[in-house]
Amino acid sequence: MNGVDYLADERSKAQFDVDELKIVWAGSRHAFEVSDRISRLVASDPAFRKDNRPMLGRKELFKNTLRKATYAWKRIIELRLNEEEASKLRFYVDEPAFTDLHWGMFVPAIKGQGTDEQQQKWLPLAYKMQIIGCYAQTELGHGSNVQGLETTATFDPQTDEFIIHSPTLTSSKWWPGGLGKISTHGVVYARLITDGQDHGVHGFIVQLRSLDDHSPLPGITVGDIGMKFGNGAYNTMDNGVLRFDHVRIPRNQMLMRVFQVTREGKVMQSNVPRQLVYGTMVFVRQTIVADASCAISRAVCIATRYSAVRRQFGSQNGGAETQVIDYKTQQNRLFPLLASAYAFRFVGEWLKWLYTDVTQRLQANDFSTLPEAHACTAGLKSLTTSATADAIEECRKLCGGHGYLCTSGLPELFAVYVPACTYEGDNIVLLLQVARFLMKTVSQLGSGKKPVGTTAYMGRAEHLLQCQCDVQRAEDWLKPSAILEAFEARATRMSVACARNLSKFKNQEEGFLELQADLVEAAVAHCQLIVVSKFIEKLQQDIPGNGVKQVLGVLCNVYALNILHKHLGDFLSTGCITPKQGSLASEQLRYLYSQVRPNAIALVDAFNYTDHYLGSVLGRSDGNVYPKLYEEAWKDPLNDTVVPDGYHEYIRPLLKQQLRTARL
Amino acid sequence: MNGVDYLADERSKAQFDVDELKIVWAGSRHAFEVSDRISRLVASDPAFRKDNRPMLGRKELFKNTLRKATYAWKRIIELRLNEEEASKLRFYVDEPAFTDLHWGMFVPAIKGQGTDEQQQKWLPLAYKMQIIGCYAQTELGHGSNVQGLETTATFDPQTDEFIIHSPTLTSSKWWPGGLGKISTHGVVYARLITDGQDHGVHGFIVQLRSLDDHSPLPGITVGDIGMKFGNGAYNTMDNGVLRFDHVRIPRNQMLMRVFQVTREGKVMQSNVPRQLVYGTMVFVRQTIVADASCAISRAVCIATRYSAVRRQFGSQNGGAETQVIDYKTQQNRLFPLLASAYAFRFVGEWLKWLYTDVTQRLQANDFSTLPEAHACTAGLKSLTTSATADAIEECRKLCGGHGYLCTSGLPELFAVYVPACTYEGDNIVLLLQVARFLMKTVSQLGSGKKPVGTTAYMGRAEHLLQCQCDVQRAEDWLKPSAILEAFEARATRMSVACARNLSKFKNQEEGFLELQADLVEAAVAHCQLIVVSKFIEKLQQDIPGNGVKQVLGVLCNVYALNILHKHLGDFLSTGCITPKQGSLASEQLRYLYSQVRPNAIALVDAFNYTDHYLGSVLGRSDGNVYPKLYEEAWKDPLNDTVVPDGYHEYIRPLLKQQLRTARL
Repeated sequence: MNGVDYLADERSKAQFDVDELKIVWAGSRHAFEVSDRISRLVASDPAFRKDNRPMLGRKELFKNTLRKATYAWKRIIELRLNEEEASKLRFYVDEPAFTDLHWGMFVPAIKGQGTDEQQQKWLPLAYKMQIIGCYAQTELGHGSNVQGLETTATFDPQTDEFIIHSPTLTSSKWWPGGLGKISTHGVVYARLITDGQDHGVHGFIVQLRSLDDHSPLPGITVGDIGMKFGNGAYNTMDNGVLRFDHVRIPRNQMLMRVFQVTREGKVMQSNVPRQLVYGTMVFVRQTIVADASCAISRAVCIATRYSAVRRQFGSQNGGAETQVIDYKTQQNRLFPLLASAYAFRFVGEWLKWLYTDVTQRLQANDFSTLPEAHACTAGLKSLTTSATADAIEECRKLCGGHGYLCTSGLPELFAVYVPACTYEGDNIVLLLQVARFLMKTVSQLGSGKKPVGTTAYMGRAEHLLQCQCDVQRAEDWLKPSAILEAFEARATRMSVACARNLSKFKNQEEGFLELQADLVEAAVAHCQLIVVSKFIEKLQQDIPGNGVKQVLGVLCNVYALNILHKHLGDFLSTGCITPKQGSLASEQLRYLYSQVRPNAIALVDAFNYTDHYLGSVLGRSDGNVYPKLYEEAWKDPLNDTVVPDGYHEYIRPLLKQQLRTARL
Repeated sequence: MNGVDYLADERSKAQFDVDELKIVWAGSRHAFEVSDRISRLVASDPAFRKDNRPMLGRKELFKNTLRKATYAWKRIIELRLNEEEASKLRFYVDEPAFTDLHWGMFVPAIKGQGTDEQQQKWLPLAYKMQIIGCYAQTELGHGSNVQGLETTATFDPQTDEFIIHSPTLTSSKWWPGGLGKISTHGVVYARLITDGQDHGVHGFIVQLRSLDDHSPLPGITVGDIGMKFGNGAYNTMDNGVLRFDHVRIPRNQMLMRVFQVTREGKVMQSNVPRQLVYGTMVFVRQTIVADASCAISRAVCIATRYSAVRRQFGSQNGGAETQVIDYKTQQNRLFPLLASAYAFRFVGEWLKWLYTDVTQRLQANDFSTLPEAHACTAGLKSLTTSATADAIEECRKLCGGHGYLCTSGLPELFAVYVPACTYEGDNIVLLLQVARFLMKTVSQLGSGKKPVGTTAYMGRAEHLLQCQCDVQRAEDWLKPSAILEAFEARATRMSVACARNLSKFKNQEEGFLELQADLVEAAVAHCQLIVVSKFIEKLQQDIPGNGVKQVLGVLCNVYALNILHKHLGDFLSTGCITPKQGSLASEQLRYLYSQVRPNAIALVDAFNYTDHYLGSVLGRSDGNVYPKLYEEAWKDPLNDTVVPDGYHEYIRPLLKQQLRTARL
């Protein structure tokens, strides 16, 4: 920071060691150091400038991304960055690009679904970026229902090839990132047809463009699907449309680790367990939860700092007005989001552990925890991404009118974030999967089969269905045991109520369709419990640093009690708490806000974001907001000239005309 | 519609006369006919094309708006449109422009606050657009707190002039639409200073630009404040920044209808009641509520039609998949928004009546209903705009991945709508005003002063504080009396509880600050009651048309019971209903959805929106979504060439390099 720190006063109020919290946030001292070093490296390189993005037209914007993405790659090579560092660098460049899909989906798909030979052939090319790949699954007519994809891959035993074909308009591949203009190859999902028989959807490596001149190969129609939500945002990405007209690929380009087609066209499953696929899902969704904690913390950082800078009303005798962060309405909206940022961070960290655990078990052929892990990651993906999307917009509103300016950084953050609610599983569809798992768990309760992992609490269903919350004073709500039991009781009772209502239907599937709305609510209750319990577990770990554990404890309570207040109807209607206990929770929550208040700025400083990464004038680390807003305004292209283009053509004639005919 | 109607089947399911409902929606046969005629006129004129907006750079976009706005004006003159028709035309052009502020704020400000002579001088110029005006109130440092504005207007008795000055950076005018590049004049709000004394904030007509060459007048710095949220959206508007360096204007350019400064510099109030200002506020907010019903209905129309077109899962034996509108989760999210569109429409209609009523009373010097009318419009502005902003985004999500494309129309609708939550009173600040009024009403309950208008129910507080809901079966929730009493009891009990908690504070203001969050919730409960009760009142009117009243009755119940479910915590914690009654409400709600379902498409057809106005491929009236999505994609500038700009510079070198140094 150069110059005056207008937030110095705020920083001095903190009651904990912010440097220690930075390490807790990052996950480890090593992770902190890598993040810190790479984020500064990106911030200090003018080639990575991004503040001009909203003003660029689509072509210019896209070309600019090509420049940055290839420059980033060059730097990764020059600096000899390892995988962790390289991925951090891409993260801090903070611009969706074809490389995201190449590294994040194409390479993992080959790794996960390719045979050893296939990996040996394709991975070195991909690692050196001598080919660029995308992940072509979604079609114009099919997203959530992957089994309904229409693209076909028909085996031709005469030539030992697959014929990839788009039989209908709705079978056009639609959305894959990096596909529209850049990818040379794609993992394409298509229905495997041999000898007239449909064997379901499988992945195929298909070359899309010539490696010589980049033109689409014969039979391939490919292009960009057009502008998406927001300024800049995902418009830096070439999400694409792709049609196949009987395109032939060699048989060995079907990804055959699990499912194989022989030279004769015989279809067989390998001895590799199909469940491997779920392991990958756990991995991908774990990443999405981690991303959610980044996005929400970024929005919260901007809104918190600006709330400390902005003053409005409350001036007495001509003195300074009140900082808006001091208003209870502001705190009531902002601090639960701050708490959510930490909550999502910690549950994301735990998911990382879960992925390792699942992987080890898979290797040992233990599939017992897989369904639970799968449901749990699906639910957490849904919960955290929905909450984060809402939180970003709420943070924008918490910045008042100025949040509407692109320079606030929040419009672009929102626009670039919201697809997370839809991709890798639509959030509502995922919650229904969770609900299905919960219903199964409830139905097995009597059978002696013990629920595992995050559903273990249901093993105590008998107790949870009839326990009474013993909170008598507001401060009783600070006890983790009181919170946990209330959340467990609520989740159990909602699931059991759904199961009871379901049992009234003759046809279970019909009942499931009819009761969807209630089932989704039960799934949400279960997922919120997971987040709360993982936050509490984190606090039970050894957390060093002066006051760090205390302030995190406050946030944990804010997170839980705010949910309790927002979903009070659940807790009351299931009889988990009494109205009086609900109002004690609100009282305690108000008191907790006053404990967050002095620590608020330090709590967002702990995210350790550079001003470059934040990309927000309102969220500037030094709080010098107004002069910078003013300065930025003049950079708009409209201010290139004092008299705007169009004045002589349209405005002057208007002002000079005599309107004798007007009826107005 | 030309060609096949893919929604014909859906339309044939309707159980009511859609043409009759169109008239109910429009408000009258006359209003319907004007809307219908003007919207078709705009839709059929290629000059008003708007589908290319997201692709235009800022300058191009802005110039395009100048063209359209002046062309619209030309058409208004040529066709000799009257005021109603002209405003409809601007509405259907559907593009924020300087003319909005000229007609919507500048002209009304002079009408409302100018003396007769001032009106005679300025209005003819404005009506003929020989001058173009804006409304310069908000400053960089002050939005909500109008009394805190810093710009000064110091009277100079020597020259009989005011000196308009921006003493600080934060006093820069910031946000006014039309100011940045176009307006020649502005109504500027500034602190009136005479003889060293500060007389608060008043309006002044200030010329900003030369009428000859459009250059800013001496002492005036003016420009655009830069890009705002979204593609197209409000970037067609030149929201501006404005600084004054001792700019002199004649004394008679202070708007002096209520407050006057004499030649000698004496400050005096005229005999025109100050309360007039509130009449204007009621008018403006009434318009905003009407706009909310337009915006939400537009989003709902898109999402409903697309939900009937889109199919996913549930295919049996290779048949068609299930329309997503048939899923209960989709209905549970979509149908309450459909109901809200109608609810907001009817409450907006009632507000129009309220404005007439208030105006008549003002003219008769009856100010008795003004505070209530003011609180009520503030609350309804807040409630409807917040709900509409959320609803648009929810509709976007209801369209799945494709809602993220600009061609869905929803991203731009969201981006252009959200400022409504902030302008003309920040929504939270407004709710606090409502709460203040409610606390006053409660405190006077014992005094014999009878609450009026929308607070009349509080006159029955004694009953409402102890009444018991008598719902015993799900269908009991269909009785308007049951719904009304539950909502009245909830609102009363929440207000009374707040008043009780407030009374525990020695200092009322301190208490008010501390309990802000609860007060906001009480205000929301009150406002939701108003919307519900006005919907019920509407149904008690004579509504012609086969089945129209029935289907509106269903929507009214959906609106009310959905709120009851969402705010179940309020109803339960105040003991207004029992958990059992809450669950009966949910059961009834589910049943109501099945009654909405066959009518859904006809209910959105009744809005009578042209495809041009909707601006959405997903919401096309004929349901021919996929071919049009595909067709639109190819129009993106990135598809101008097969090989993208930047390939030779960045991608080819990447693909061709040999990376011997990579550590990856």
